[in-house]
Amino acid sequence: METNPSFVLEAIQHVTFRDIPVPEIEDPYDVIVQIKQTGICGSDVHYWQRGRIGDFILDTPIVLGHESAGTVVRVGKAVKHLKEGDNVAIEPGVPCRHCSYCRSGSYNLCPDTVFAATPPHNGTLSRYFKTAGDFCYPLPDHLSLEDGALCEPVACAVQICRVGEVRGGQTVVVFGCGPIGILVQSVAKQYGAKTVIGVDINRKRLDMAIDIVQSADGVFEPPQWQRTEPHDADAEVAFYGNVAEGIKKQFALGEGPDVVIDATGAQSAIQTGVQLCKKGGMFVQAGMGRENIVFPITTACIRDLTIRGSIRYKAGVYPAAIDLVASGRVKPQKLVTHRYKFEEAIEAFEKVRSGGEDVLKVIIQGVE
Amino acid sequence: METNPSFVLEAIQHVTFRDIPVPEIEDPYDVIVQIKQTGICGSDVHYWQRGRIGDFILDTPIVLGHESAGTVVRVGKAVKHLKEGDNVAIEPGVPCRHCSYCRSGSYNLCPDTVFAATPPHNGTLSRYFKTAGDFCYPLPDHLSLEDGALCEPVACAVQICRVGEVRGGQTVVVFGCGPIGILVQSVAKQYGAKTVIGVDINRKRLDMAIDIVQSADGVFEPPQWQRTEPHDADAEVAFYGNVAEGIKKQFALGEGPDVVIDATGAQSAIQTGVQLCKKGGMFVQAGMGRENIVFPITTACIRDLTIRGSIRYKAGVYPAAIDLVASGRVKPQKLVTHRYKFEEAIEAFEKVRSGGEDVLKVIIQGVE
Amino acid sequence: METNPSFVLEAIQHVTFRDIPVPEIEDPYDVIVQIKQTGICGSDVHYWQRGRIGDFILDTPIVLGHESAGTVVRVGKAVKHLKEGDNVAIEPGVPCRHCSYCRSGSYNLCPDTVFAATPPHNGTLSRYFKTAGDFCYPLPDHLSLEDGALCEPVACAVQICRVGEVRGGQTVVVFGCGPIGILVQSVAKQYGAKTVIGVDINRKRLDMAIDIVQSADGVFEPPQWQRTEPHDADAEVAFYGNVAEGIKKQFALGEGPDVVIDATGAQSAIQTGVQLCKKGGMFVQAGMGRENIVFPITTACIRDLTIRGSIRYKAGVYPAAIDLVASGRVKPQKLVTHRYKFEEAIEAFEKVRSGGEDVLKVIIQGVE
Amino acid sequence: METNPSFVLEAIQHVTFRDIPVPEIEDPYDVIVQIKQTGICGSDVHYWQRGRIGDFILDTPIVLGHESAGTVVRVGKAVKHLKEGDNVAIEPGVPCRHCSYCRSGSYNLCPDTVFAATPPHNGTLSRYFKTAGDFCYPLPDHLSLEDGALCEPVACAVQICRVGEVRGGQTVVVFGCGPIGILVQSVAKQYGAKTVIGVDINRKRLDMAIDIVQSADGVFEPPQWQRTEPHDADAEVAFYGNVAEGIKKQFALGEGPDVVIDATGAQSAIQTGVQLCKKGGMFVQAGMGRENIVFPITTACIRDLTIRGSIRYKAGVYPAAIDLVASGRVKPQKLVTHRYKFEEAIEAFEKVRSGGEDVLKVIIQGVE
Repeated sequence: METNPSFVLEAIQHVTFRDIPVPEIEDPYDVIVQIKQTGICGSDVHYWQRGRIGDFILDTPIVLGHESAGTVVRVGKAVKHLKEGDNVAIEPGVPCRHCSYCRSGSYNLCPDTVFAATPPHNGTLSRYFKTAGDFCYPLPDHLSLEDGALCEPVACAVQICRVGEVRGGQTVVVFGCGPIGILVQSVAKQYGAKTVIGVDINRKRLDMAIDIVQSADGVFEPPQWQRTEPHDADAEVAFYGNVAEGIKKQFALGEGPDVVIDATGAQSAIQTGVQLCKKGGMFVQAGMGRENIVFPITTACIRDLTIRGSIRYKAGVYPAAIDLVASGRVKPQKLVTHRYKFEEAIEAFEKVRSGGEDVLKVIIQGVE
Repeated sequence: METNPSFVLEAIQHVTFRDIPVPEIEDPYDVIVQIKQTGICGSDVHYWQRGRIGDFILDTPIVLGHESAGTVVRVGKAVKHLKEGDNVAIEPGVPCRHCSYCRSGSYNLCPDTVFAATPPHNGTLSRYFKTAGDFCYPLPDHLSLEDGALCEPVACAVQICRVGEVRGGQTVVVFGCGPIGILVQSVAKQYGAKTVIGVDINRKRLDMAIDIVQSADGVFEPPQWQRTEPHDADAEVAFYGNVAEGIKKQFALGEGPDVVIDATGAQSAIQTGVQLCKKGGMFVQAGMGRENIVFPITTACIRDLTIRGSIRYKAGVYPAAIDLVASGRVKPQKLVTHRYKFEEAIEAFEKVRSGGEDVLKVIIQGVE
Repeated sequence: METNPSFVLEAIQHVTFRDIPVPEIEDPYDVIVQIKQTGICGSDVHYWQRGRIGDFILDTPIVLGHESAGTVVRVGKAVKHLKEGDNVAIEPGVPCRHCSYCRSGSYNLCPDTVFAATPPHNGTLSRYFKTAGDFCYPLPDHLSLEDGALCEPVACAVQICRVGEVRGGQTVVVFGCGPIGILVQSVAKQYGAKTVIGVDINRKRLDMAIDIVQSADGVFEPPQWQRTEPHDADAEVAFYGNVAEGIKKQFALGEGPDVVIDATGAQSAIQTGVQLCKKGGMFVQAGMGRENIVFPITTACIRDLTIRGSIRYKAGVYPAAIDLVASGRVKPQKLVTHRYKFEEAIEAFEKVRSGGEDVLKVIIQGVE
Repeated sequence: METNPSFVLEAIQHVTFRDIPVPEIEDPYDVIVQIKQTGICGSDVHYWQRGRIGDFILDTPIVLGHESAGTVVRVGKAVKHLKEGDNVAIEPGVPCRHCSYCRSGSYNLCPDTVFAATPPHNGTLSRYFKTAGDFCYPLPDHLSLEDGALCEPVACAVQICRVGEVRGGQTVVVFGCGPIGILVQSVAKQYGAKTVIGVDINRKRLDMAIDIVQSADGVFEPPQWQRTEPHDADAEVAFYGNVAEGIKKQFALGEGPDVVIDATGAQSAIQTGVQLCKKGGMFVQAGMGRENIVFPITTACIRDLTIRGSIRYKAGVYPAAIDLVASGRVKPQKLVTHRYKFEEAIEAFEKVRSGGEDVLKVIIQGVE
């Protein structure tokens, strides 16, 4: 533990490899983990390219990466459930534990959370990473460290399903067949949904959902609105209403699905999804796109819909995600399309940024 | 019971007084009520002026009116809780009782509801009105029939508070100080809210909320966005964000209110309200305005908000409303600004349509 | 449709075969079903032997049987979703649709429910049975009428899981491996439970759960308390506490299962189950035994438990049960141990009454 | 801050006054409070007399007392919302913040909570008491330190009402008119309950509820079961059923109250309360008596009841309690019947132990 090579975002669009100080245990509840595998998330790329997401702005250099697993190398005295050598999945945000959000079980909303790779906090793309012991979860022996890193997007999917109160016997439509969309479909299915439908405008991603991961019972490729000049907003909204009707008919969803989850953030998906939702149903906004969109508020009102946002994860979600991966019921491994060495981190990030049709989940190995 | 004079909407903007057939009991669960008092609602005026609301379109003449109370004059054999002479408040929508919405307790969503004065169903502005006995609630002796008619908007307010899960100890901000807004404030207060704030751009309505009905602990008159050319949507949204901050500071709401209820349907109120809401909080859309608005979807997502629409009323709401009026805890009587005889129904409707500052709730007496 | 042979409970322990009047459609929402398959339930036997359950007392003869499926032979005019010749599963209780329970979605609590074979209402062991159309559910073509009859105990199990709010990722322990216990295990598993454990004192039933139906991930045969003289209640309670600890250890349930469901009604199971339940967890009482038992109320209080009773089924449960059977995810067919012709109904009832180890679900065919 | 005189329970029934070490700030989130007022609770007396409650056993001496308020005299660096001189109400249990209960918002269930005066942790009857800053709540200027100490039983009452999901418009029956019972009645009333009924076998306590505190809309003095020889359990249970019917009739509760709360722990109250509860209703066990009681489990099952235990308080409860006291909506001051100086602590404890009819809440002032 003499050096700590790290992949650092110095400023917008400027990354370097350099050593940062090797962390030391101070708080007895902390542990130090040697990072072995890290997935790249869209938010990592976003900070790299634009330096901000919402109120989080890159002011000082930060280490990137937050979907990680590794091996425990130091254990604080107060940590009882871990020992050196344990392989762990790392939940990337450690909340303050003192504010009203933390105390009431909504630690995903804690304003003082130290979230990996969210400015100004360092991420996990270092050799050594210090964090709270209770946010490290031992991996069952049969799971690899790559499996451990992949528990992060599964945890996002579990949280989204919990926010949507997905229950046995329901019908669920998920907009978006990227990694999160597909994992949401998988979790919904494993949690007893009767029918899960995936929607995407990308045929390859639909194939992934239906054939490779088999997360969905059916998939739908919606027609796309042709922008008109001058822009006719009413016609556009009516167009999405028709798409919604088409989905209902094709999959015999009757009055509409019980739950609609948007994992795209696109106005077209949200418009279609809200109009698709059954009266009294649930719509979950999980993807992030534009800050403001044109929204069918009267439909939401008249139909008695519940619309909820999902952000990060609450207590119990990470263990549930690990259980799903450990039992083989959810298979995030099928989403991994590219693997890189630590030294190739820039290529890995470029690959995600390119956003090619064949790019789903990209993994970076730890420093050797 | 020889004639049944009625106030009929024949076609858009064309109303008449004429006799319709006197109803007779066929279903043993039905009763016939002689209508004594009827409040006018914005939706009555809307049908009169435009002939449609959403999917409900005026194709054939209908009797107007749906906020009514009266005296029972005929009772079906299967009705046990009513007898001739009873004064009753009338819940205006009778659902089908057989569909999945009805059976699961969401009869407000039943597509086959016979709702008074919603095309093609006749309303209550007749001498005699036939309806289901279990949708007629006996009034306590100390309540007048006008009080009974006023239970309808109170029921709307109770439903909105139930949708918003308003609980003891919460802080609640209500946009809109018209009849519904003020009654929502009253119900929230009576259901234990710690602080209730009313917002309106009309000073007279704010005075009503704070001084006359005393439904709110505080009121706020927001500044209005000055439309710019070309329209700068981002600046407008930021403007509403600042208004939200102003409300939080003025009333010491800390991170924001637990519950925000919009009873206006205006984009400005919804934008301000969503940005005002506490993280993890509740926003209820109760007012109806434009079908689509520019909506801060990312804020809703990042802040883990729950957004719910409220429409009509579920089981138990009408009795709860009558209880609140009977105990004097909610005083809809203070909202009555004008009273008309049945023969003056056109003047009454014109008064509501004029929408003057001094017009809140307008009442029409029954045919003598 | 000239005669209607029926299996009638004339008085306690006195059954006959005799004709009752052929039903006719009066209410336009009704249908007449020719009964083809009927399962026998413990309650049928109970009425036969003792003439009462709780407040329901046999005063007049009733036809027995309530777990049935058949073919529609007459359809009321208002029934849109059925036609003559349709095979249907029959939900056996038709509520009044007018009381506050019915209107609020708790029709399982309606005091005026006409429940098949609950005094004074006739059951389904006739050739023809009249009931409400919306309580008859068309069977998919690939399901047999026996499958349709078996949807009734599956519906009980779905309701129990709903009452217990069984969710994906939970650990669930079910006391009792009779038909209901095993079906509860199956439904919990299909609704995403991580681990399901079955408990029974009958080894054959445990084998059924673990090997034949594979409804449970593990099974447990508890030791039985040896009654002492004089009876030492404290020692008995402590004994069950130790059993609970044993279950936790054997199945690595940590602080205890999230949900415990008792499908036995036995004091030993309830004592063990309440002490087994995780703090903040859920205990569902689904089985019925003695009216009063010695109950660890302080444990329930200190551990912040939620204890709920389950009775009959609410809206949406029957369709969910049919979905589970139709998709093959729940297999009640594996529980059928004996089949009888209509004329052998007495033998069938005797078989259930004998309660042999090898008796699970007994089916009676319709009159030919 | 040179000495720290304390009231110490050395062993069962053996208390002394002696100095314990003056606490010092080590954790930057801690504060030191000079204790000014302390209420005595039944549990304090229970430890004094019997040395144990449930699994908590007196092995080493502990300082008694846990219902306290005082003045902040030292503030850790990480505490932002407090400064020296602030008067605070002290929430007496500080949880570990790391276990799954704490992280999920159920810190009342944390097994490692440091709860004042629960073995082996010291209570508040010292001059100086060290605790976590976020468990100290600043008192509004117009509240006295005695008011602050009285926030503790109000917090218990708020938690009980939250567990019971007491909502506006409900009917609530509370068994027990001791301090907790009366405060539960008050909180239920302030949170919008339509009707609150108090039940007690002590006429003086009923007078307190109805006349002095006016927490209840009505009170009921139940007849008491005369034990028979040999004991006839069925007759006893039937007797309580009749009492339940009597309560329903006297207060026009129809099918029964929406919520029943037992603040006694007595089998007679629990039997009556469960039989009293409306179908589908809620029963909260808040009082603690015998570990096991004879319980009408079949009634709970058939009536679809929800039975929940309440223990301590969750996040947000203490602030809600302070709000209720600060606004004058709940008046715990009316329950104070006796006040003692610190040096008279033994007399104060003896007074509570005596349990006279005129003893409700007893307060001990801090060391001068």
